[in-house]
Amino acid sequence: MAKKSRSIIDSIKEISTNVYNKIMKKKAPELSSPLRSLSNVKYDEKAGYFELLGKTKSRSLTASTVKSFAQTLLMMKESKNLIATNDIATKREMYYISKNWADARFSEQPESDAVMDDIEAMLEVNREQMGFIPEEKGGDIAGKLIVIDVDQDTGKEIKIDCTKFGSGAYSVPSSVEHLKFETDAKFILAIETAGMFQRLAKHNYWKKANCILISMGGVPSRACRRFIRRLADEKKLPVYVFTDGDPYGFLNIYRTLKVGSGNAAHINKYFCVPNAQFIGITPKDITEYKLPTHPLKEVDIKRVKDGIKNDPFVQYYKEWQKALTEMVKMKVRAEQQALAKHGINYVMTDYLPKKLKDSKSWLP
Amino acid sequence: MAKKSRSIIDSIKEISTNVYNKIMKKKAPELSSPLRSLSNVKYDEKAGYFELLGKTKSRSLTASTVKSFAQTLLMMKESKNLIATNDIATKREMYYISKNWADARFSEQPESDAVMDDIEAMLEVNREQMGFIPEEKGGDIAGKLIVIDVDQDTGKEIKIDCTKFGSGAYSVPSSVEHLKFETDAKFILAIETAGMFQRLAKHNYWKKANCILISMGGVPSRACRRFIRRLADEKKLPVYVFTDGDPYGFLNIYRTLKVGSGNAAHINKYFCVPNAQFIGITPKDITEYKLPTHPLKEVDIKRVKDGIKNDPFVQYYKEWQKALTEMVKMKVRAEQQALAKHGINYVMTDYLPKKLKDSKSWLP
Repeated sequence: MAKKSRSIIDSIKEISTNVYNKIMKKKAPELSSPLRSLSNVKYDEKAGYFELLGKTKSRSLTASTVKSFAQTLLMMKESKNLIATNDIATKREMYYISKNWADARFSEQPESDAVMDDIEAMLEVNREQMGFIPEEKGGDIAGKLIVIDVDQDTGKEIKIDCTKFGSGAYSVPSSVEHLKFETDAKFILAIETAGMFQRLAKHNYWKKANCILISMGGVPSRACRRFIRRLADEKKLPVYVFTDGDPYGFLNIYRTLKVGSGNAAHINKYFCVPNAQFIGITPKDITEYKLPTHPLKEVDIKRVKDGIKNDPFVQYYKEWQKALTEMVKMKVRAEQQALAKHGINYVMTDYLPKKLKDSKSWLP
Repeated sequence: MAKKSRSIIDSIKEISTNVYNKIMKKKAPELSSPLRSLSNVKYDEKAGYFELLGKTKSRSLTASTVKSFAQTLLMMKESKNLIATNDIATKREMYYISKNWADARFSEQPESDAVMDDIEAMLEVNREQMGFIPEEKGGDIAGKLIVIDVDQDTGKEIKIDCTKFGSGAYSVPSSVEHLKFETDAKFILAIETAGMFQRLAKHNYWKKANCILISMGGVPSRACRRFIRRLADEKKLPVYVFTDGDPYGFLNIYRTLKVGSGNAAHINKYFCVPNAQFIGITPKDITEYKLPTHPLKEVDIKRVKDGIKNDPFVQYYKEWQKALTEMVKMKVRAEQQALAKHGINYVMTDYLPKKLKDSKSWLP
């Protein structure tokens, strides 16, 4: 799936050799990468994520592009070193490393991030494969999963058994490209809030349900999305998503996890989880389970109406159009934890078992 | 240190029995708790945290207090049940549980949170001991530590070895009251950013330095602070704090970790880490290590000046007054990751070893 380290180094060498040869022939070298915007994506269920349409932008070396051209090449060199030494750098560190580049140094981090995005798109990899890790951590895991990592000093395999952490959890590292998995779980349950995860983990819900619990902590980080994706792909596991019943849960958390986002379309293929399914809280659940609700704010209603009108994902699925329209009519939202109205462990004894059995109650 | 579960149940029984007896005698029952505000705290190095001065507020049962009175008693009952069944509820869940209290139900969560704060202060415990856990998770741990937890189903001890997580980490649960520890580490290193933690964890820095690494992820959560405090107390370990060199790192992250905050003074004694010491980034480090900087914003300068003038912690320590005054003069701040200017692993090969040896370079 992911490009191997060797082939990224090869790509970097190839691109820079082309630049070098052009210069030697006294011709202007060029660097080109896919155009990154919503106007350059489409959604198709078979692919399962927002795909690039193929528009590219090219940058020739001229007097006005000389600095960003140099920066791009220097950052590619840095990436090559990171891969070769099996090291990592955050986006922020990459920015600071440039402070030793004399006139080519970045003056603000957004400049440095934009160059990183360009290289990512140019090489068609995700930046974690280039050695650049996000600042934020991944999710938390509990349940029937053994993660296989490597000790940096000895090179030996380390097996991490996620059934053995009591009320705690395994915290996913910022970069997950090197991890391997062993599991006999039947599915992955991706949970929005740390509080709900804590309840399910403390009560060993994964044992009864034979599953892997993942705490996303709001919109999942890159590391968390990539972890779920790799685990689901390699172990052929279905992914069920359990969020609050609100526009943020539907269109930010779930939609981003499943198909990705518009402004990062060149990397969606690595980060989306196309087989994810939404088990709740659905607008229908709010009525059926008589959940305590909160009124939708104007901005929520606008967000939903925008989604129905403009989001290629919502436009693709009638079920989501219907559910979102229902929510706008009901004018209310409900949280995962609202299930506590029926008893704090009702979510484990009744709600989840019932929902998991009834695939008709899910959303695609 | 912490009140035992048994004695919390006893306190709840005692308070409610008093209320019951007063009512039986046809007298108005009262509930009293410490006044929670900066005007009711003092700082003293021996105690090590913001302490209550002893002002209390009393609430008698009258026509206008009948609802909040009932809510307080009902929530105490809920806490008693949680403790008796070894269960947990988040603040949010507690709010939803009240939806079954008929007329005594809360209409907004802030009401429910305020009642919880009152009970916490009344019983002089932290709410985790009452069975109420925070929504947010604790910190991440890597290094020379074995955490001892209990399996909820079997009641058996589980030993979690934090040297065995590879590039991942042990994620601290929302409530840590029941955890025990084994360690032969020499100190705890509490780190502001997930990115810096990831670098130190990936390179097994804890092995060379013989320490325990803790990622706070910004201002540490209650669970993270309580974890560090309990670990430091029980294993007599020094705590070194490593944050960005900016007002937020000094006065929000470090000061909150070490002495607590003004508006939660009744629980500081459980959450503060009085023996914490600040190893960097100090304003002096910015000059000595020639770090890349960012200009201080007006709001940062105001925050620092306010701190010098009004914060009992800063007023107590001349060293902090001097350091903050220096920063205002320099008009710049620097991040942990700015050390990457000297090479991405300079922080491990040079900065931390040098700083850890030189206690004169620390701040109290």
